[in-house]
Amino acid sequence: MTFIDETHVPTRRSWVESAQGDGTDFPIQNLPYGVFRRGGSGEPRIGVAIGDAILDVRGAAEAGLIDGLGGALTGSTLNAFLAAGDGAWRTTRRAVATLLDAGTATLRDDATGRGRLLVAQADAEMLVPTAIGDYTDFYCSIHHATNVGSMFRPDNPLMPNYKHLPVGYHGRASSIVASGQPVRRPQGQTIAADADAPTFGPSRLLDYEMEMGFFTGPGNATGERIAMREASRHIFGMCIVNDWSARDVQKWEYQPLGPFNAKNFLTTISPWIVTLHALAPYRVAGPPRAADDPPLLEYLQPADDMGVDIVVEVLIASEAMRAAGQAPVRVSRGNFRDLYWTIAQMLAHHTSTGCPMRPGDLLASGTVSGPTEDARGCLLERTWRGQQPIDLPDGTQRKFLQDGDEVIMRAWCERSGAVRIGFGSCRGVVQPAG
Amino acid sequence: MTFIDETHVPTRRSWVESAQGDGTDFPIQNLPYGVFRRGGSGEPRIGVAIGDAILDVRGAAEAGLIDGLGGALTGSTLNAFLAAGDGAWRTTRRAVATLLDAGTATLRDDATGRGRLLVAQADAEMLVPTAIGDYTDFYCSIHHATNVGSMFRPDNPLMPNYKHLPVGYHGRASSIVASGQPVRRPQGQTIAADADAPTFGPSRLLDYEMEMGFFTGPGNATGERIAMREASRHIFGMCIVNDWSARDVQKWEYQPLGPFNAKNFLTTISPWIVTLHALAPYRVAGPPRAADDPPLLEYLQPADDMGVDIVVEVLIASEAMRAAGQAPVRVSRGNFRDLYWTIAQMLAHHTSTGCPMRPGDLLASGTVSGPTEDARGCLLERTWRGQQPIDLPDGTQRKFLQDGDEVIMRAWCERSGAVRIGFGSCRGVVQPAG
Repeated sequence: MTFIDETHVPTRRSWVESAQGDGTDFPIQNLPYGVFRRGGSGEPRIGVAIGDAILDVRGAAEAGLIDGLGGALTGSTLNAFLAAGDGAWRTTRRAVATLLDAGTATLRDDATGRGRLLVAQADAEMLVPTAIGDYTDFYCSIHHATNVGSMFRPDNPLMPNYKHLPVGYHGRASSIVASGQPVRRPQGQTIAADADAPTFGPSRLLDYEMEMGFFTGPGNATGERIAMREASRHIFGMCIVNDWSARDVQKWEYQPLGPFNAKNFLTTISPWIVTLHALAPYRVAGPPRAADDPPLLEYLQPADDMGVDIVVEVLIASEAMRAAGQAPVRVSRGNFRDLYWTIAQMLAHHTSTGCPMRPGDLLASGTVSGPTEDARGCLLERTWRGQQPIDLPDGTQRKFLQDGDEVIMRAWCERSGAVRIGFGSCRGVVQPAG
Repeated sequence: MTFIDETHVPTRRSWVESAQGDGTDFPIQNLPYGVFRRGGSGEPRIGVAIGDAILDVRGAAEAGLIDGLGGALTGSTLNAFLAAGDGAWRTTRRAVATLLDAGTATLRDDATGRGRLLVAQADAEMLVPTAIGDYTDFYCSIHHATNVGSMFRPDNPLMPNYKHLPVGYHGRASSIVASGQPVRRPQGQTIAADADAPTFGPSRLLDYEMEMGFFTGPGNATGERIAMREASRHIFGMCIVNDWSARDVQKWEYQPLGPFNAKNFLTTISPWIVTLHALAPYRVAGPPRAADDPPLLEYLQPADDMGVDIVVEVLIASEAMRAAGQAPVRVSRGNFRDLYWTIAQMLAHHTSTGCPMRPGDLLASGTVSGPTEDARGCLLERTWRGQQPIDLPDGTQRKFLQDGDEVIMRAWCERSGAVRIGFGSCRGVVQPAG
């Protein structure tokens, strides 16, 4: 529990009223970073979520209320701040926590300053928080890998490498958008089960994947590695990732080089980065390895508690449900701690050949599925390739996503003795193919 | 042959003496763009190669000799110029060609101006010319795919999708370096043929892949596509790509999601981007499809001649050879026109699901192998997994690369009636594992 400091005191309170109680994802113990724009226009600014508001961090730095770190907090992305490293992250976290603390009069008693530096989240447009240099997607849920594998290779669902290394592949950084952006159903090349030749048209098997991602800090030079014991200093924080997937495109294209067009049309992330410091009370040991699991190679041996206890949840609301005022229906609930590999192992493995990480890169976990049916994090698994459709309150069923469906992902941490913190949500509505 | 214009007149000459004759890759008919730094220091500047010199394009723009395009030619990367699009590319090409033409006195007769704006290539450090947002690698040589496939699946070397779409995967942008950077042998997880468990250590099967890449121009918005007939307006130019590969890492890791750590430790590119305009005399029809090949789907139907006749060559010089003053030995020679898919088809397919291209993205072809043994563009194929080692003049043999080996790739275009143009070289020396 390296990162516990005074920012985690459960009785600590903010003068921001909406940051109190269990109803918010963003109490003073959280303080996630994002990049926002006021009223859908204006320039991108770094902010910190507090209750239903955003502290304009750039404004606070320019007003001299916190250290602007030589420009690292006044740019239009978080990259420079992530490059500044763990010391800067700690300093700024303490400064922001102090500024927002109920005991600090500076802004609490300054209505003009509050009006200038606190922005209602409802009035802000959230952007992708870093210029993502590279995006990587892993495959770290053994439940997901086993489920998907067993559909295609019933006798041999897990590849021989699965328990030896965190399998991953490179994704497409240019197609990452922030929560709320429309999700146009992709067109693509697919082949029907008994057809001789493929056709090109709208994907018919559009799916989501509930994942968690993490952003890298300072990073490593080409040819260098990040060791397990250093990993936490190179991980700034986490967000929700929806790795939209066209299953019919994927099935036809993916051999022998892996998923490509089936994934690169869009990836949606939640806009707030919950820092590893905020997650400190929820860090747990990595997943226990079974007695018959192979031993880990040394470069993947845990040096610290790098599992994270995060509840993850997927909800769907069809267009008809939204029109009728019906609440979204929960499709699954799982936990990030059930992954077979930790974020430290993902980072150590990724850099083991010397691959350079740059500040602001995004690494995602792969679908977070748990051991039970209701913990399966994508429709491919949840409906078992459509064989077990989900009933929606509007009287329709879902095998895969239909136009008009809204997918809502949520994630949060809670345990007794600590204050609940959340990630906000990651949303997208499916639009018809263009 | 859309792009033929007055810049291609074979009798045209430059007042730069080293740009004359067959000995140079960079006559006035070429004019490739790059980013350089004087004497290994100073700020990165856009330049154009001419003979054995570089025209300082930023300096020329600041001196008012060419239009700076509102800053697009005075930045430290080519991204803004690539975003400016085909009209700007034509205008600048004509302006640079005019400035360097033997008939233009402006610099020809101004020794001071020449001294300021012409930099010897020998005195410059070449950099990666764009900030590469995303890097994609294809698998477009049917000879390469058939050779590699037959090693692992003798009865079924080509996947069913191969003749229907250009197979590709996402690569790692952060590990792309310019020619000349050292190539540290990666460490990685591998498994011996009869072992029960993998080990971690230096790769023993380090290979190169001779590829050609292209840089994108303006690009497309998320959810939009680039049609075949528009492709050439979105392709700025080409370079040589060496996709260094750790074959033992690749074999163990690549299923089911494709190559990852086996490739992301380093990719070397030649620093000069030869424009599609310069390549116009060498554009040819795409590869003929055999009578029994399946018909192309409409979105991949050729709209223009998008094959390119480029000779590609790989040479190796071991450390001992270099010490003894022995010339590098040629390992293979092939031609880019032998690919099964064109660069237009790669771009149209990549964007067919709506994946956004940004200016300066890099797309590579995959290994360029031809139908004959001596046209195989990587050692895996060339030595047939080491079964047919290559004899070097220093008395040693190569199955895969050894420490100290320098790999030199060259590419050029020549035909009667046109002036030979070249890509320069793409080089790297293998360093021991760190």
